[in-house]
Amino acid sequence: MKLCKVIGFATSSIKYEGLSPYKLLVLKTIDNNGLPSGDAFLAVDTLGAGFSDVVAVTTGVTATNAVNNKDLPVDAAVIAILDHVSINKKEIHTKNKEE
Amino acid sequence: MKLCKVIGFATSSIKYEGLSPYKLLVLKTIDNNGLPSGDAFLAVDTLGAGFSDVVAVTTGVTATNAVNNKDLPVDAAVIAILDHVSINKKEIHTKNKEE
Amino acid sequence: MKLCKVIGFATSSIKYEGLSPYKLLVLKTIDNNGLPSGDAFLAVDTLGAGFSDVVAVTTGVTATNAVNNKDLPVDAAVIAILDHVSINKKEIHTKNKEE
Amino acid sequence: MKLCKVIGFATSSIKYEGLSPYKLLVLKTIDNNGLPSGDAFLAVDTLGAGFSDVVAVTTGVTATNAVNNKDLPVDAAVIAILDHVSINKKEIHTKNKEE
Amino acid sequence: MKLCKVIGFATSSIKYEGLSPYKLLVLKTIDNNGLPSGDAFLAVDTLGAGFSDVVAVTTGVTATNAVNNKDLPVDAAVIAILDHVSINKKEIHTKNKEE
Repeated sequence: MKLCKVIGFATSSIKYEGLSPYKLLVLKTIDNNGLPSGDAFLAVDTLGAGFSDVVAVTTGVTATNAVNNKDLPVDAAVIAILDHVSINKKEIHTKNKEE
Repeated sequence: MKLCKVIGFATSSIKYEGLSPYKLLVLKTIDNNGLPSGDAFLAVDTLGAGFSDVVAVTTGVTATNAVNNKDLPVDAAVIAILDHVSINKKEIHTKNKEE
Repeated sequence: MKLCKVIGFATSSIKYEGLSPYKLLVLKTIDNNGLPSGDAFLAVDTLGAGFSDVVAVTTGVTATNAVNNKDLPVDAAVIAILDHVSINKKEIHTKNKEE
Repeated sequence: MKLCKVIGFATSSIKYEGLSPYKLLVLKTIDNNGLPSGDAFLAVDTLGAGFSDVVAVTTGVTATNAVNNKDLPVDAAVIAILDHVSINKKEIHTKNKEE
Repeated sequence: MKLCKVIGFATSSIKYEGLSPYKLLVLKTIDNNGLPSGDAFLAVDTLGAGFSDVVAVTTGVTATNAVNNKDLPVDAAVIAILDHVSINKKEIHTKNKEE
């Protein structure tokens, strides 16, 4: 799964019919320091992820499992909002409890 | 899903039989400023996306869900024409209403 | 789908049994000027694509749809031989009619 | 499969329901010298891989085979903890027996 | 399919149960001159590919077709040992008959 930060949102009025219930998040993968890097992409979310949350994103057809609908045309979905991420025994992300 | 801009079109007279009903769009992903970047690729479209539209593109086998035909050999399909895209609370794309 | 040019061919005497009927094309994706770039890869073809043809290639499991056989271990297949490709309203590829 | 080193761990309290039994490993692919390189990503593990282990990671929908559950939204899973890896007849990784 | 050279091997005593019958090859894609480049990765093989062989590797779920077992968690498999590969009408690989 990609290790990502939520950096924005997208809205659409003309879309594949079954997509209406889902929020479209804009995300980037994070680097060793927890900073967003690379190209932005879109994922659906059913867990209530918010701006600046660090999340695990499943990509490809397994995203349809995250929404429990194998017929939905989605290739990326948030499957976990992460509390802690460590790299080489150093914490690179700790979820802010007030958030 | 990839965050893309429609930058062109492709036509073909010799193709897999079931592809005839679909327009082939040429797309690129967009960067933080909403500009096309990277390699161009092709996707099918059923939503009527036009030149310079910013769209969400599903890739891989889930593209077959977008055309409601799991037997079609397509690996990329437009699933939403985007009205607004924000990155870090700054709007990087707003759909032109006259378009 | 990838936007590619046929740049060569590969042959094999020791291969997965069901592959015998298919020609193995060597391809590269094309850039904004229609020139091959990046790493070469292999795809199967059922449309009769020839050297220097510009084609649409579906990748991943949808390549098995192109050969109408979901049990074949192929991850790339030509699904269209392209006549015209435009980027930013400029024609970057026009199929030579004599070819 | 990706050739990877386990470089950390992630934890989550808000996640897709079925993920609870699985540990989330943070991994990077290794280079010719066996050193981690590129972007970190997440995988599930059922084999008990520990910090600094070199492992084979299957990606995409086949990760659901590794957990024997085709409905789980995971796209990366450890399928082997590697004892020896050689490149050009030089051993680039040998598992420490005391570990 | 990826155009690859076999550059090494990996062994494992702790692995997903069904993997035991398969050899794990270490591979890299080859460039225009037939030389290995980029990151090394792993694939299963059922054709008897040996060190320095040039092979076609299918990636993703279609690798399970190569082993005729859709439940195996493999995402890369050799599907052909290549005899000849040409790029721009120049032979970049010819299999050594004595090998």
